[in-house]
Amino acid sequence: MKQKRFILQETELPTAWYNIQADMPNKPMPPLHPGTKQPLGVDDLAHIFPRECCVQELDTEHDFVPIPEEVMDKYKAYRSTPLVRAYALEEALQTPAHIYFKNESVNPLGSHKVNSALPQCYYAKQEGMTNVTTETGAGQWGAALAYAASVFGLESAVYQVKISMQQKPYRSSIMRTFGAAVTGSPSMSTRAGKDIITRDPHHPGSLGTAISEAVELATTTPNCKYTLGSVLNHVALHQTIIGLEAEKQMAMAGEYPDVVIACFGGGSNFGGIAFPFMRHNLKDGKKTEFIAAEPESCPKLTRGEFRYDFGDEAGYTPLLPMFTLGHSFKPANIHAGGLRYHGAGMIISQLIKDGLMHGVDIPQLESFEAGMLFARTEGIIPAPESSHAIAATIREAEKCKRTGEARVILFNLSGHGLIDMSAYDQYLNGDLMNHRVSDEDIRQTLKSVPE
Amino acid sequence: MKQKRFILQETELPTAWYNIQADMPNKPMPPLHPGTKQPLGVDDLAHIFPRECCVQELDTEHDFVPIPEEVMDKYKAYRSTPLVRAYALEEALQTPAHIYFKNESVNPLGSHKVNSALPQCYYAKQEGMTNVTTETGAGQWGAALAYAASVFGLESAVYQVKISMQQKPYRSSIMRTFGAAVTGSPSMSTRAGKDIITRDPHHPGSLGTAISEAVELATTTPNCKYTLGSVLNHVALHQTIIGLEAEKQMAMAGEYPDVVIACFGGGSNFGGIAFPFMRHNLKDGKKTEFIAAEPESCPKLTRGEFRYDFGDEAGYTPLLPMFTLGHSFKPANIHAGGLRYHGAGMIISQLIKDGLMHGVDIPQLESFEAGMLFARTEGIIPAPESSHAIAATIREAEKCKRTGEARVILFNLSGHGLIDMSAYDQYLNGDLMNHRVSDEDIRQTLKSVPE
Repeated sequence: MKQKRFILQETELPTAWYNIQADMPNKPMPPLHPGTKQPLGVDDLAHIFPRECCVQELDTEHDFVPIPEEVMDKYKAYRSTPLVRAYALEEALQTPAHIYFKNESVNPLGSHKVNSALPQCYYAKQEGMTNVTTETGAGQWGAALAYAASVFGLESAVYQVKISMQQKPYRSSIMRTFGAAVTGSPSMSTRAGKDIITRDPHHPGSLGTAISEAVELATTTPNCKYTLGSVLNHVALHQTIIGLEAEKQMAMAGEYPDVVIACFGGGSNFGGIAFPFMRHNLKDGKKTEFIAAEPESCPKLTRGEFRYDFGDEAGYTPLLPMFTLGHSFKPANIHAGGLRYHGAGMIISQLIKDGLMHGVDIPQLESFEAGMLFARTEGIIPAPESSHAIAATIREAEKCKRTGEARVILFNLSGHGLIDMSAYDQYLNGDLMNHRVSDEDIRQTLKSVPE
Repeated sequence: MKQKRFILQETELPTAWYNIQADMPNKPMPPLHPGTKQPLGVDDLAHIFPRECCVQELDTEHDFVPIPEEVMDKYKAYRSTPLVRAYALEEALQTPAHIYFKNESVNPLGSHKVNSALPQCYYAKQEGMTNVTTETGAGQWGAALAYAASVFGLESAVYQVKISMQQKPYRSSIMRTFGAAVTGSPSMSTRAGKDIITRDPHHPGSLGTAISEAVELATTTPNCKYTLGSVLNHVALHQTIIGLEAEKQMAMAGEYPDVVIACFGGGSNFGGIAFPFMRHNLKDGKKTEFIAAEPESCPKLTRGEFRYDFGDEAGYTPLLPMFTLGHSFKPANIHAGGLRYHGAGMIISQLIKDGLMHGVDIPQLESFEAGMLFARTEGIIPAPESSHAIAATIREAEKCKRTGEARVILFNLSGHGLIDMSAYDQYLNGDLMNHRVSDEDIRQTLKSVPE
């Protein structure tokens, strides 16, 4: 019988993260101070983030960064995650492609996010912090952070995008179960939140608004650092544990991916699975194709511009070099809350500029159709975010059907959808629609990008 | 660093289930026809259940039953499940005990139930059925059955206990995502349901009412078989994959359990983890202690009587020899919906009678307190059912703390609680209470047991 799942034993787990910055032909451009427009150093960033994360953020030298033993110890509670050959999906599609997925949904928190929450909390604790704050969209990152904070004995405060909080009430319950204080954003508890609500009393919230509030709380609370679940370089660094494991597991399966696919919000799960394989494109002449699947309603990779822009709605963050729709962009209320973000991470943005990867945009209904097919074949209900990766995978598998090529496709199943069942209900009831953004809307919000 | 998780590779998976009936000193008493009081044979049962399941039900000869290759193939999508050493829980309890848990929550459906749903649907398909029906409480079994039916190309209809359906709306969405038709029980769609509603218009439903309806639908629909998620011998047989894996994994850890604990509704997850170890008590002189953790609000093991009783509320099933509270017993609306059942399986009932295992009853608040501690230490939010096993484990671990004994405790984490977050919300808000049953109530409902 053909082997379906590939698992690493604890002794085989990778013990260092992969830092693609060391191998990039063009390094990411630096983050800038919004006032002086000068490049920011570790000291500038370290009043917001744990210092070690800032060092990692700007490290363009070391290709591997050792994982602290305390973090390894926590990783072992759920890693390795399985690499799975999706035989049933292949059969349903009648494709000659070999489809593999890395199943990051089988950890206790239900998504890949915990891979970075653990080191961020560990580093915060190490430098004597007592509190951490963060933002969360659908709640995957917030749940992971709340858990990681409790593991390392920190208090956590989470600003959750208001619309996601309403759509997925269970996620805030999960955060509260792990001891987090959870607030819907925009809220009246911060200056940034008050300003946003004053301008637009019915603002549904976005990752941009929630980041503004969490950063404000962190910078006005003693012994408190802000943590971020995506976008930044150090977050993608931590997530490379996914791809490093997958590399070993693909070898167990006797294959190497021709295509690597992940959904795309800020870039953390994409970078996590893609960068370790991209290394071999950069260094060993491999020709793997890398596809980031973004929602049609938030198309920064395919229709945004490469500009210096703020990471948040209120303009509290440094200026970041990114493919962006403008930090004032308000994404439609799609269920893939984790993909509702206006900009792409700095590394990803540079890689796209250099033609080393590309994006595709997926309409909401296509993503749910893909998610349903995956559930009924592989038995796993995917997170709406992950369904974008599945949809992109199905497109590639159907190309293979037309050409007869048996390409090896690897995608990252970043999380399960068990907390998103209201979204599936709406889909089953025919209540969902697509949300294509007009060119004019993008032109308008790009005006919010500082010159 | 100490190893935390123990995983089997696909080639190491057990390929046969363990049938404890072959090794029991006293075989379970036979199911009886309610009219004639004569023992029932395979032919009598096979108009309700898939025939192969009926053969397994009454098999007291073969100690191992080969797992069909098609079922093994589906098991490989999620098995083996990890055996985990709960270091963080041990530390929080400051106990010298070694606590291990078998993590059945990490399959796509979130609980152990799929282990039996797959073979039941496979056998139904094999004998030419097109439809299956079942009942479900919290929805763990219904979700598993809906998935297994879709995997083997069968239509499924699920009667879900009405109160559980209201408490956990996501579970019916999951079933619908897998294509099942879901109806709240008691309903007006069956004679049994109509009768129950006529007697008690506000009946919250119970596993007993839902079984009556599903059996009625199966016996009045062509090419349709009824499937059951617990109680019966063949269900426990299928679940022994849990304990057989755990046995190999405990050996990897270099230990053998002094105590094996599982929560108890009808006995499927308990039998699944316990029977393979009990085999060594029966045959090899091992002295492992077996503890079934039932809710204080439904205490058939600790306060019920060993009697022939119906398996369902309406009296449609054969008479089964069981520890029972009476088939008219209406359990309180606790959140551990899967444990709200009036009787224990036939094998378990005989084993209790013979002193080979025992039950403990756990108050609801103690179960949630245990679940919260487990979540905050091990990072997994347990199903309210599984929290009963955790509570019983904590009691044992605390005994060890008092005596200084380093006993090896193994419990089954039968499922996660991500779909049960409303229950955690209510607990966190202080809205839950205990529901101890009075002796008088039990005396009354025992009157419903036929003489």
